[in-house]
Amino acid sequence: MQGTTEDTRAAAYTPTDRTVPTRSAERASYDKELVHAILDEGYVCHLGFVRDGAPVVLPTLYGRVGERLYVHGSTGSRPLRMTGQADPGLPVCLTVTHVDGLVLARSAFHHSINYRSVMVHGTAYEVTDPEERRLALDALVDHVVPGRAADSRPGNKKELAATAVIRLDLEEVSAKVRTGGADDEPEDMDLPHWAGVVPLRKGYETPVRNADLAPGVELPDYLAAL
Amino acid sequence: MQGTTEDTRAAAYTPTDRTVPTRSAERASYDKELVHAILDEGYVCHLGFVRDGAPVVLPTLYGRVGERLYVHGSTGSRPLRMTGQADPGLPVCLTVTHVDGLVLARSAFHHSINYRSVMVHGTAYEVTDPEERRLALDALVDHVVPGRAADSRPGNKKELAATAVIRLDLEEVSAKVRTGGADDEPEDMDLPHWAGVVPLRKGYETPVRNADLAPGVELPDYLAAL
Repeated sequence: MQGTTEDTRAAAYTPTDRTVPTRSAERASYDKELVHAILDEGYVCHLGFVRDGAPVVLPTLYGRVGERLYVHGSTGSRPLRMTGQADPGLPVCLTVTHVDGLVLARSAFHHSINYRSVMVHGTAYEVTDPEERRLALDALVDHVVPGRAADSRPGNKKELAATAVIRLDLEEVSAKVRTGGADDEPEDMDLPHWAGVVPLRKGYETPVRNADLAPGVELPDYLAAL
Repeated sequence: MQGTTEDTRAAAYTPTDRTVPTRSAERASYDKELVHAILDEGYVCHLGFVRDGAPVVLPTLYGRVGERLYVHGSTGSRPLRMTGQADPGLPVCLTVTHVDGLVLARSAFHHSINYRSVMVHGTAYEVTDPEERRLALDALVDHVVPGRAADSRPGNKKELAATAVIRLDLEEVSAKVRTGGADDEPEDMDLPHWAGVVPLRKGYETPVRNADLAPGVELPDYLAAL
C-alpha cells in the first residue's frame, strides 16, 4: 500500500450519491483527518433512524475508535432495541455539527452561519463481542474527557448487561464547512448595513464538585486544564 | 377560552406515543414556555427525513413564529424539493440540542452530559402564501440575531424565487432536560475519583468586519451587546 495514489485514496472517503451535495459543493470534503477532527470535538451527535416509516432524530453521546463510531444506551431504549432486532442492522444517519459564527450580510438572503458538520450514512449493528464492547464503552467515556475512562470505576456485570452498544463504520462520510465573511451581491456593497461575522466560542466554566464528594478528592489535572 | 383547565391545557403540548420516552421519563417536559426557550436559544436544528427508505439528518437554520417552525433552503435542495412533491407533506423529526455541561461520575456507567433538547415530530409543508413566506424569512434572519431582518436589504424577486420555505407546526413536541451532578451508586461514594460537572458556556467573540465593508459603517448596538 505505498505510492501516491494509494496514500491519497486512504486519506479520504469515497464520495457517493448520498454524500455529494446538490448545492454548495465547494463546502464538501471527504478528508478523513478533517472528519475525525470534527467528530472528536463534538459532545453530542444527532442519530437519525426510521420508526414506523417516520424519521426520528435522537441527540446522544458517541465515541470514535479509528474508523468506527459507537453509540450506547439502555437495552430498553428504542433505537438500541431496534438495532438488535433488525437484520441486517438498522439504517442510520449520524450528524455532528459545530456552529462557529453568525454571518451577517447586507442582504437578508445572504445571512448564514459558519459551521463544520459531518454526516455519516450507514447501517448500525449491535456489538456483542465483550472486548469490542469494552473498547467502545471506554471510547464513549474518553470522548467526554480524554483519559477519564482510566480514572473511573469500570462497568460491572449488572451495568454491562443493561447497556447496549451499537457500531457505525465510517465509510459513507462527508464533512461540510463554511468559513469566512458575508458574500453579498456586488450591487449591495454600499448599503449602510454592517456585514461580517460574530464568532462563537465554546467555553468551560469552573468545575462544580458533587455535593456528596469526599473532602479529600482533588480536581484532577486533566479537568483543571480545560 | 378562560378558566384554569383551559389555561393549563394551552400551556403544554399533549404527550403522544412518540413523545413519551421509554426511559428517563422524569427528564421529559411538554411545557410550551420551556420548549420555546430551548428552540429560541439554538442556531441550528437537525432535520430528519426519509429518502429512499433511509434516514437523513441535515443541520440547518430555522425560525419560530408562535407555534410554527420554519426552515428554508434552495429550491434545488433535496428536502425542500421532496416537500414540494410530497402529498400530503413530508414526515420529519426536528431536534434542537444544547450541551450545558459534562457530568463526571465515579463510575464509568454514570458519566453523562447536562443538556436541554427539543424534539418535534410532524409533517412539513411547503409555504406558498407570499405573506407567510415573508414572515418566515424575517423570522429566520431574526433567529440569528433578533432585530436583524429590519436592518438588512429584504429579498428581491430573484432571491425569493430561489428560496423554498417549509413549515412544521409545534403539535407533537417534547423537551428533555438533564441538570445537576453525578448520580453515583451508594457503594461508590468513597471511591477516589473526582465527581461533578464541568459547565459549558456559549461565548461570543469580538465581531469581525467584512473586509469589503465601507469605512463609515459602524457596529450596530444589537451586535455590540452580544
